[in-house]
Formats: sequence, structure tokens, C-alpha cells
Amino acid sequence: MTAETDTHFWAAERAAALDAADPLAPLRDRFLPAPGVVAYLDGNSLGRPVATTAARLEEFVRDSWGQRLIRGWTEPGPDGPWMNWPERVGDRIAAAALGAAPGQTVLADSTTVLLYKLARAAFDAAATAGSARRVIIAHADDFPTDRYVIEGIAAERGGEVRWIETGLADGVTPAQVADAAGPDTALVLLSHVAYRSGWLADAPAVTAAAHDAGAFVLLDLCHSAGSVELALDDWDVDLAVGCTYKFLNGGPGSPAFGYVRRGLHDVMRQPIQGWMGRLDPFTMGPGYIPAPGIRQVVSGTPPVLAAVPLLAALDLLDEAGISAVRAKSVALTEFVLELVDAWLAPHDVEVISPRDASRRGGHVTIRRAGFRQVVDALWDRGVLPDYREPDAIRIGPAPLSTSFTEVHDGLAVLRDLLDTSRS
Amino acid sequence: MTAETDTHFWAAERAAALDAADPLAPLRDRFLPAPGVVAYLDGNSLGRPVATTAARLEEFVRDSWGQRLIRGWTEPGPDGPWMNWPERVGDRIAAAALGAAPGQTVLADSTTVLLYKLARAAFDAAATAGSARRVIIAHADDFPTDRYVIEGIAAERGGEVRWIETGLADGVTPAQVADAAGPDTALVLLSHVAYRSGWLADAPAVTAAAHDAGAFVLLDLCHSAGSVELALDDWDVDLAVGCTYKFLNGGPGSPAFGYVRRGLHDVMRQPIQGWMGRLDPFTMGPGYIPAPGIRQVVSGTPPVLAAVPLLAALDLLDEAGISAVRAKSVALTEFVLELVDAWLAPHDVEVISPRDASRRGGHVTIRRAGFRQVVDALWDRGVLPDYREPDAIRIGPAPLSTSFTEVHDGLAVLRDLLDTSRS
Repeated sequence: MTAETDTHFWAAERAAALDAADPLAPLRDRFLPAPGVVAYLDGNSLGRPVATTAARLEEFVRDSWGQRLIRGWTEPGPDGPWMNWPERVGDRIAAAALGAAPGQTVLADSTTVLLYKLARAAFDAAATAGSARRVIIAHADDFPTDRYVIEGIAAERGGEVRWIETGLADGVTPAQVADAAGPDTALVLLSHVAYRSGWLADAPAVTAAAHDAGAFVLLDLCHSAGSVELALDDWDVDLAVGCTYKFLNGGPGSPAFGYVRRGLHDVMRQPIQGWMGRLDPFTMGPGYIPAPGIRQVVSGTPPVLAAVPLLAALDLLDEAGISAVRAKSVALTEFVLELVDAWLAPHDVEVISPRDASRRGGHVTIRRAGFRQVVDALWDRGVLPDYREPDAIRIGPAPLSTSFTEVHDGLAVLRDLLDTSRS
Repeated sequence: MTAETDTHFWAAERAAALDAADPLAPLRDRFLPAPGVVAYLDGNSLGRPVATTAARLEEFVRDSWGQRLIRGWTEPGPDGPWMNWPERVGDRIAAAALGAAPGQTVLADSTTVLLYKLARAAFDAAATAGSARRVIIAHADDFPTDRYVIEGIAAERGGEVRWIETGLADGVTPAQVADAAGPDTALVLLSHVAYRSGWLADAPAVTAAAHDAGAFVLLDLCHSAGSVELALDDWDVDLAVGCTYKFLNGGPGSPAFGYVRRGLHDVMRQPIQGWMGRLDPFTMGPGYIPAPGIRQVVSGTPPVLAAVPLLAALDLLDEAGISAVRAKSVALTEFVLELVDAWLAPHDVEVISPRDASRRGGHVTIRRAGFRQVVDALWDRGVLPDYREPDAIRIGPAPLSTSFTEVHDGLAVLRDLLDTSRS
């Protein structure tokens, strides 16, 4: 046995041992099988469907939409009046994943639209007449839509964006926020887990730094909700948004969620005044009067059918518990790093995610020239991570649906591809 | 046989004859049966599911989301790359229902959010520096969300709303638009079919009147798309939005559509700058550069799964053809009026929809003191119209799924309720 095959054998053994000791392992069978997929390593982009998803949708179409018809909006029933789904589903997300008390979260819109609504609400609340607060602080390497949204808001509201620059492998620190924020600052916008590097921001300390400067904080939780433990209430976060199609398994283009701290419900106003966020919408009366509480964040008709797959996934997350999910997520990304160090480092593959697990979210990003073509080859072989500029592969194992052996098998294919291209 | 039972017999006979002569009658069996429903008369609020909807959703979850996973967004396949769904589904709606050439319609967001984006785009394009155009003209009795959205825009952009008042049974005329619009006018917003009265506006003449004043036109097509024949291109309409859950049978809270006339794609900018409306989104580059054409109207991640039921419904609409749908819609509402005149007028029921079919959309609204309680009684008996303030019942038979006999049976229950309450 050569040293190389010995390493290979060791890794497979270790993956099997980790799977055997994994308390969440049985939940993997609760997802729809994907026979042609060797390793799905993109839970950070699109989560897999829970096996009951299609049946839940069929049941909704048959019994709810098909039979209750228009009565579903207002009459109670097993699925409640649909009118309340924004808060009902929002509260379920809050309990399962956000560490937030009820009445502060709604399901609505897309992440981009909710970012616009909540960033506008915060900016307008801070930049009231006479206030000098017109600066939005953000990470220069934040997810594109976050950057575009606040650039648009700054342009239309007479504000200014102040960018915090970081290295590709770094994220924003509380000290950087403290340095950047001051009496001119309206809002600090930050992704809790950086989409590119997987850097996990110190959310409570960032929030405290922003608050020390008198600014609001808006967290983008797209890459952390359902993966990292959150305590929005305890951290005193002002506003948050996130998608439900990554680690929350809501399906392609599923609706987003928005959180507004209770103390701000009477302070902030979002700009898209719609009938579904109005007090007593069915009076259809003159003039917009915001509904009390979190409901005013809603604008249009709630995306009811589109929320059904998410309900199936939230059942599973409740069953597992977010602490166990995070523990497995850390173990999975540690194992990714072990294999990358053993197999890929000799091929000059660079890790641009934090080595410190407490500063790392649910994915590991590796980098090497030519990875664009390598991802195509991986996809052809049923190994599915994703690619991000420049030359980066993101490996995002989903704790509920990914085994250690799957991680092993996927990285073994990547190793063999690099071995072959070298020879 | 009394005169009364004679009338009853005549009406049932007539309904049966109309059904026998209806070329669309066979399509009714293509909807999911609703055994407990005597008469579904609310196609103007929530359309029924096509029978294949659940199977289409199951297929999407199993073969597309579940197997293609992240590859579905970018790789071609039987369902195309999901990334293109906003335009692909938009073009299908345009061809089936809007009278619009490809490349001008997207599926996205909710009606309210799209109203905000397109009304803002039009207002900002008209109210450029140095322009005196800061007035938005709208119907004082338009659907609430339309009113709230433009009131919000006027407040934030330094504009003003000029309301056109009408009687409860009337709608806005081209002459009223011509009177109201002038060199101060940025935008005329109008629902093509008025939600309360069912009044069908003369869209080409309203558009011409707005254009004569140098203003843009934004039509809300929620109550006309899939019911009334539209020719957005021929009418030279600038902008339009609509929902897909009424006569387009997309399901509770299904996504909305937005139309922007091709000539305006390089003139207008919507305010919610998101990655999915940017040129080359996956470069994730700095700064927002709008994608060419209609794509720039998209902000967030496209609602792919939520569009699946709509695809099943559009197949059926294509098969029927919108001309045949409109012809049956007129026949259905004529029959509603016949029965109302024969059975309900003696109970002081008032019709507040146009008698002239060419000025009437797909629903008939009737009014009488106490109708709030009557609707509850109807719902208890499986007869499902809806209620709108003040004291109004809307009867909206959907041409693809409603028979004349169903209309007869539903109105017979209403007649009996009023007969009983009198005695």
C-alpha cells in the first residue's frame, strides 16, 4: 500500500466513523433521493427538497386551494387563514432559526425587495429632518444585491455609502465598524456570513459598535439562517433579512423573511405601502394606515403556495434543533478542511475561509487558477459545489442532508481531477 | 305551475341550453373538482387550480429541483434554465393574455411591489430635473393597494396625486383623463377593470388622452388579464402590472407580472436595484448596471417553484384562446344580469356594473343593505362570490371553469335566501 492509497483509505474510514457517530445522520433519509448526484455540496446556494415536499404541495392544492378556495384567505382551518401566513411562517422561522420572539418576523417578497424596504425604513428613520445621519456603512465585498440596493437608496435619498474594505479571505470586524461609524452614520448593513469567504461576523459586537455610534444595524442572514445559531433578540439586532432557499430548503426562488425588532415597529416606516400591510385591509378605506406591529412590513398578497415546501423543511429543522445543526456544520467544514489540506493543498489550492470554526459559517471556499473549468468537470461527474469569482469553489455541506462520506466522495473526485490534470 | 316556479324552470332550462352551446364547456373538466362547492363565483379573486397542477408541482420537485439542484439555474433542460423564467413565463403571459410581443413582460414580485417599481420608474422619468411633471392621476375608487402605493411615492418624491372621482357604478372615462391631465402630469394610473364595479375602461382612449398631455400610462390588469382581450402593444400602453391568481389561476399569492413597452427600456429605471436585474449578474461586479431590455425590472431571485401552477393554467388558456374566453365571459355576465333582474331586483338588489357589455369586465357587482350577512350564509351553503364594501356582492364567473348551470345554481341559492328573509 503506497502512502497515497493509505491516505485515501484513512479518509474513507474517517468519513464512515464520523457518519456513524452523527446524531443527525438518520435525517438524511428524509430528503428526496437524488440518484445521479454523487455529492451535493451547495446547501449554501439551494437546499435539497425534503421528501414530503411534493405531497405537502399536492395536499395544499387539493384540500386547501382547490376546496377552500377564496375562503382560505379569511376562514380558520387546519392551515389557518392564509392571510396570517406572513406572521405565522415568520414566527416559525424565528423560533427554528433566528432566536427571535414571535411578532417580529414576516415571510414576504424576495431578499432584495426586503433589503430595499428595511434599509429604506432605517435610513429614513435615521435621516430625519435636521439629522446629519446620511451614511450607510457596508462591506465592499458584500453580496452584490446588498451593494446594489444600498447604492440605489443612497442615490435616491441623498445619502452616501461608506465601504469597509477587507482581504478576500477576511470579513468585517467590530473594530472596523467602530472606526467607520460615527455621528454621520444612519445604518450598518452586513452579511452575517460572507458569501465569498464564509467569514462569520461577530454579530453582537458589530451591533454594539453600530449602536455606540447611534446607527441602526441590518443583518443579511441569507448564508447563516438554518446553519448558524442566531440570537437576534439577545444581540439587540435592529433589522434582518434572509432567504429561505439555502439552508432552509424552501425551493428555487422561495420567499424571503424580514425581522424588525419590536421596539422599532412604531419608529420605522417601509416605503412600499400596500393593502396587505394596512390596518384593516378589507375596509379598503382611503389612505394608508400601517398595520400595528410587524405586519406593516408586508406589501402585497402573501406568497402562500410558495411557502408550503418551507413548512416541510421547518418541521425537520425543529426536529433536529439548530444547535445540533450548527455542531454538525462545524464538524462537516472541519472535515472539508482536513481533506483539502491532505489532498488539495499539494495542488496549490488555497483556503480563503477562516480556520477558526467560531469565525466560519456553513461553507468553505477554496481557490486555484482554473477552477472555473474544474467546476464544469465536477458538475459533469455529479459533484455539485458552486463557483464564485475569482477562481473560487464554495463547498457548502448542508447538515441535515449531507453525510461525511458524501463530502469525502465529492472531494475525492476533485482530488482525482487535479491529480489527473497534473500528470 | 305558478308564475314563480315557471320562471325558475325557464332559467334552469336556459342555463342548460347555454352550456350545451358553449364551446369551452369541455374545459371545465380540466379543473380539480371541488365536491363541496355548489357554485364558485369568485374567479375574479382566486382562480381554481387546473387538475394537473399538483402533478406539475410534483414533477418539478422530483425531476427539477430535486435532481438538477443548483444546475437548474443555469443549465438548459426541459424546463430551461430557471434564470430565464421571468422572461419566459412573462412572454407566455404576454402571448396568451396581453396582446404584447415578446421581450416586454416579466414574472416577478407581487402586484404591489411591481406597481411601486413601475410607478416610481415612470414618475422619476417624467419628473426629471427642470420638469414640472409631478402629478400622478388616479381613480379615487381604484383598488386600495394602487392608491396607497402612489400616495407613498408622491410623499417621498415631492409629487402630488390628483384623484378622479366617479360614482360607485361608474369608471374613469377618457374625457375625465383628458380634463385632469396636463403639462404638470407625470403618470396616469388606472385599473383596466375596476375592482368594485367591474367597469371596463377604454384603455386605448385613456392612453391616448394621457399621451396627448405628455404623461405616461400605467394600467393595473389584475381584474382583466385572462378575462378581457388586451392589445397592449397596439394600444401603445407604456406600463402594466397584474396578478396571476385571479383569471390566470396561478394559486394563492402567485407572482405578479410587469410589462414595459420596449421603447421605454432605455428611458426608465426602476428603483430596486437587485443582482437579478443586473447585466452579467454572476460576475458579481461592483456597481449596478441594468441588464438590457425588460430584465432590468427583475430585482431578486425569480420565484420559480411558485410559477409552476401558472404554467399549467397558461396551457389551458392557450388551448381556449382569449377571444373565446372573453366571448364566454360576456355571455356569463349577461346571464348573471338576466337572473338578477328576474329574481333579485324585486328584493331591491341594485346592479352597479355596466349594462353595456363592451364596458363591463368579468364580474358583476350587486348591492343591497345586509349583503355582508348574506355572503356568510352563501358561503355556508357552498356558494362562493365575494363581498366588498359597501354592501356589495361580486359575482365573477371564470369562463374556463364556470358553467351557466353553476351560475344558475348559485344565484338560485341567493334568491331563496332573499325570498326566505322576506317571508
